[in-house]
Amino acid sequence: MSKVYVIGLGPGADRQMTLEAVAALDRCPVIVGYTVYVDLIKTEYPDKTYLTTPMTQEVKRCQMALEEAVKGQDVAMVCSGDAGVYGMAGLMYETGVQYPDVEIEIVPGITSATGGAAVLGAPLMHDFAVISLSDLLTPWEKIEKRLKAAAMADFVICLYNPSSKKRRDYLKKACECMLEYKRSETVCGMVRNIGRDGESHRILTLEELKDAEVDMFTTVFVGNEQTKQMNGKMVTPRGYQNV
Amino acid sequence: MSKVYVIGLGPGADRQMTLEAVAALDRCPVIVGYTVYVDLIKTEYPDKTYLTTPMTQEVKRCQMALEEAVKGQDVAMVCSGDAGVYGMAGLMYETGVQYPDVEIEIVPGITSATGGAAVLGAPLMHDFAVISLSDLLTPWEKIEKRLKAAAMADFVICLYNPSSKKRRDYLKKACECMLEYKRSETVCGMVRNIGRDGESHRILTLEELKDAEVDMFTTVFVGNEQTKQMNGKMVTPRGYQNV
Repeated sequence: MSKVYVIGLGPGADRQMTLEAVAALDRCPVIVGYTVYVDLIKTEYPDKTYLTTPMTQEVKRCQMALEEAVKGQDVAMVCSGDAGVYGMAGLMYETGVQYPDVEIEIVPGITSATGGAAVLGAPLMHDFAVISLSDLLTPWEKIEKRLKAAAMADFVICLYNPSSKKRRDYLKKACECMLEYKRSETVCGMVRNIGRDGESHRILTLEELKDAEVDMFTTVFVGNEQTKQMNGKMVTPRGYQNV
Repeated sequence: MSKVYVIGLGPGADRQMTLEAVAALDRCPVIVGYTVYVDLIKTEYPDKTYLTTPMTQEVKRCQMALEEAVKGQDVAMVCSGDAGVYGMAGLMYETGVQYPDVEIEIVPGITSATGGAAVLGAPLMHDFAVISLSDLLTPWEKIEKRLKAAAMADFVICLYNPSSKKRRDYLKKACECMLEYKRSETVCGMVRNIGRDGESHRILTLEELKDAEVDMFTTVFVGNEQTKQMNGKMVTPRGYQNV
């Protein structure tokens, strides 16, 4: 019986893939994914069989991958970032319950939290929380509760999916939740198109973040009480200097 | 002026390095690091100049790297996992304030949270918090506050440094904090030696985790209310199935 590899490609350019991800792609004759991500690798691997589905057909995409494995071919399901962070890894296991003989292996990738942190400097040097502002699959009340809890306990906070066409004011609402516990001058950062052409970033205060323009390609970072701006970088000290 | 690259090697074997990390190592004639991590790459790159310091001399290690860059050589400072998550990235920027002409670049790597998640299945499919149980640089009261806040808001929680010789009962104490808000049958997982020889993992309940044996090479995962055990894997559903 063949195997399905769920592979994180990293946030942008292929130089952020791991050697393990490259090896798994090499091994699989069939590559399944969301159209946009498949196009990213098609030129590198022209001799593979490609199966794609558009954005909303995630269950079907998993079934397609599992069916190919049942037929006897190793399959690579590719995802942007890390398949295990708001990605396809979980759904693949859930769908895989119907295909008990197919082995599933997750190949981790750089996720936007760590990829974006590297662009900004070193914001995640201490305890942090990762929260998605998308309420497509989560009630907004739960998102709000998490934002407030994380702000209250002085976590560094990394926001995924901070905005979309239907949710233009979500970042503003999220900032208002965090401002109940975090100072308005808290150092924040945002990175757009991590690792891709046109990558850009900005460091700003939590007050300024409230009205910042973001889109679905932006990852947002909100510092803790110690986070500083240092030579244009966002840095959360860990404390070594004080020991 | 030369450059210092702060490079995350990933949690274990070199197959978890990114292509970007490999390229940066290739480029640098000087490699600086904690003795154990430098030994991991010495056999691959025998022709480099190696500078090492033991575990506690982090500031000195950063200064050594920056001094070499001032002399005109590109330097790679290597770290296990991701240099930006409880790693050396922040301290490098802090130390770098004294060396304003040296450019610092962070090359992200797979951190234990995402590397360990891939071993266990898909525990981090929803909002999560990363907390270190080491109180070397953080008062225990702050750690406890974060554990309780994260548990109260139903985050998946990933624990770094869950134990050491001096802190044998810390995981038990942490579980007791989380049990104030999370059910005792909450699905948890632990992974030891991620990506290395002798990698092992176990899925267990939060009640069982309280008395589990862990060490400094273990990463611990505590599920949210939805997290399930599924064919021996730890899976947090994201919700696609219900849409």
